[in-house]
Amino acid sequence: MKRLLTTALLTSAMALPASASELRQMALDYFEPLPSTIPQMPDNRVTPEKIELGKALFFDPRLSASGVFSCYSCHNLTTGGDDNMSTSVGHGWQKGPRNSPTVFNAVLNIAQFWDGRAEDLKAQAKGPIQAGVEMANTPENVVATLNSMQQYRDWFANAFPEDADAVSFDNMARAIEAFEATLLTPAPFDAFLNGDDLALSDEQKEGLTLFVDKGCVSCHNGVNLGGNGYYPFGLIEKPGADILPPDDKGRYAVTDTAADQYVFRASPLRNVGVTAPYFHSGNVWDLKVAVQVMGTAQLGEEVSDEEADKIVAFLHSLTGTVPTITLPVLPAETATTPRPTAEVMPN
Amino acid sequence: MKRLLTTALLTSAMALPASASELRQMALDYFEPLPSTIPQMPDNRVTPEKIELGKALFFDPRLSASGVFSCYSCHNLTTGGDDNMSTSVGHGWQKGPRNSPTVFNAVLNIAQFWDGRAEDLKAQAKGPIQAGVEMANTPENVVATLNSMQQYRDWFANAFPEDADAVSFDNMARAIEAFEATLLTPAPFDAFLNGDDLALSDEQKEGLTLFVDKGCVSCHNGVNLGGNGYYPFGLIEKPGADILPPDDKGRYAVTDTAADQYVFRASPLRNVGVTAPYFHSGNVWDLKVAVQVMGTAQLGEEVSDEEADKIVAFLHSLTGTVPTITLPVLPAETATTPRPTAEVMPN
Repeated sequence: MKRLLTTALLTSAMALPASASELRQMALDYFEPLPSTIPQMPDNRVTPEKIELGKALFFDPRLSASGVFSCYSCHNLTTGGDDNMSTSVGHGWQKGPRNSPTVFNAVLNIAQFWDGRAEDLKAQAKGPIQAGVEMANTPENVVATLNSMQQYRDWFANAFPEDADAVSFDNMARAIEAFEATLLTPAPFDAFLNGDDLALSDEQKEGLTLFVDKGCVSCHNGVNLGGNGYYPFGLIEKPGADILPPDDKGRYAVTDTAADQYVFRASPLRNVGVTAPYFHSGNVWDLKVAVQVMGTAQLGEEVSDEEADKIVAFLHSLTGTVPTITLPVLPAETATTPRPTAEVMPN
Repeated sequence: MKRLLTTALLTSAMALPASASELRQMALDYFEPLPSTIPQMPDNRVTPEKIELGKALFFDPRLSASGVFSCYSCHNLTTGGDDNMSTSVGHGWQKGPRNSPTVFNAVLNIAQFWDGRAEDLKAQAKGPIQAGVEMANTPENVVATLNSMQQYRDWFANAFPEDADAVSFDNMARAIEAFEATLLTPAPFDAFLNGDDLALSDEQKEGLTLFVDKGCVSCHNGVNLGGNGYYPFGLIEKPGADILPPDDKGRYAVTDTAADQYVFRASPLRNVGVTAPYFHSGNVWDLKVAVQVMGTAQLGEEVSDEEADKIVAFLHSLTGTVPTITLPVLPAETATTPRPTAEVMPN
């Protein structure tokens, strides 16, 4: 009984939140709120014309060889910007190797994909379109598709007025990046950082304190609470093969450097409460379990149920407001539009 | 030369449009404009609450066993309300047997599916969700999925306040029907029927005249220019097996009546200009070819290139304005939500 009481007192002391303004001051040492305007790209100025074109492209299933998949298929804007699966299903019903990350706020990540192999969203956008297990298309076929529809030719010309040949795979990627840059989801945590003491509940404030005190913040910091650095998964203790499959060596495949074995980009945590399942393998569905796995794997610490509940409560304060998105009306195919094919090409 | 001239004169005489008001008067004998308000269902009153819920359900891929497909997948609201494929790709990469029809204005069809086997949209909605080659789900699993999310329980309770147990497969279908009832696309042809002489070009008016004179109107009449009756495909001359596959006997499978062999519901023609490919087999991509196939198969008449061009021009006046659709924000899965499975069950 005495021991129970001591534990309770200790836990309570540890989780005791500072005043809201002290907590905010501490939080601002590690985090920053979402910007109030669309981020600009130094090499791809975001314009209304690019955004409109990019939205059309994002929703267009004719960017895939089969006509089945669009960017939206795996980055579903109605369900947290991802697809609620361990790993995505693609062309020919093949399963992709890693969990689909959310597109929301992705523009603020330091690089894209779990291993950071794409330096930005326009580089990322070209990947799945060409991946045999995803959209299985080719740049040539995409450009032929887009060129076959006058409306797309007009949209590209308006979005890229300086280009004589505006319809290109690169410009497609630039436009998609511009649209994705608009997908910011301001959350209660931003309101707290911006000065609203009541935007977080007491439990969420305790969770935030724990998140910092326990060291989660070492990797999950910045505007996206992650997405800005690379760390070995299983730093202290490797999780099981269901969570960390031995065959996927992460960033090692990008850098070919031994030290990068099982290194991944720290997950950005915005909207983590609505984007299960978790980790690159996507085999953990419960956020509390994910928090506890992180405790043992990365911090060498058992996170108690009570602590994990509070951290999870805090993480839910990162669930943001999705911008209002109206569906584009896409142009119809013409006689010269390449026909969809469900055929699976041998590798 | 003389013969050429005669042909030219004859063609010109045949296609000479009446005055706009005479043409309208004739057209109103066969067609009617879209209603200006959402159609009401006698057995499923359309309410804002049902529409909101139905929209969420329409976009929710968790209605499929795999989590890959939603109603929106094959009835894509960005591309004419269908999926631009010969036949749809479904669970396990299986190909469906017939071309996906547009959901736009479908509420005004006499019955649903190519063979009319569903009496209305709420009966239709239950089909693909359970079809093994489409969404491959079960009513029990759907209800368990919806019940696992509080937001859905609230939406169902609001939409069906009279039901003690509001979350049901039937109510799901009712809500989807209510949303789909809002998907009307008023077109230039409606403006013409409503009194705007200039809503159709001269070529479109000639096409309309030909459409009536040649007898297309016998099957394609009413508010949807079809979708309201059943007719044998190949009445005069059976088209080739690529267009009319011998194994698909159409409405015969519904009625088990010999006279219904190769009988199908006449296609509703609204938005036909943006919903290639054509026919239940989906193997004709060119609307002009489709018109000429109909001429020989149904009317026993060669439709000339010039005539077909005019009829196609008229058909493009049926391409309507898509309503503004904002994406729903769907609730996140919980611990009790059934997990997606890409596994293909044996038949």
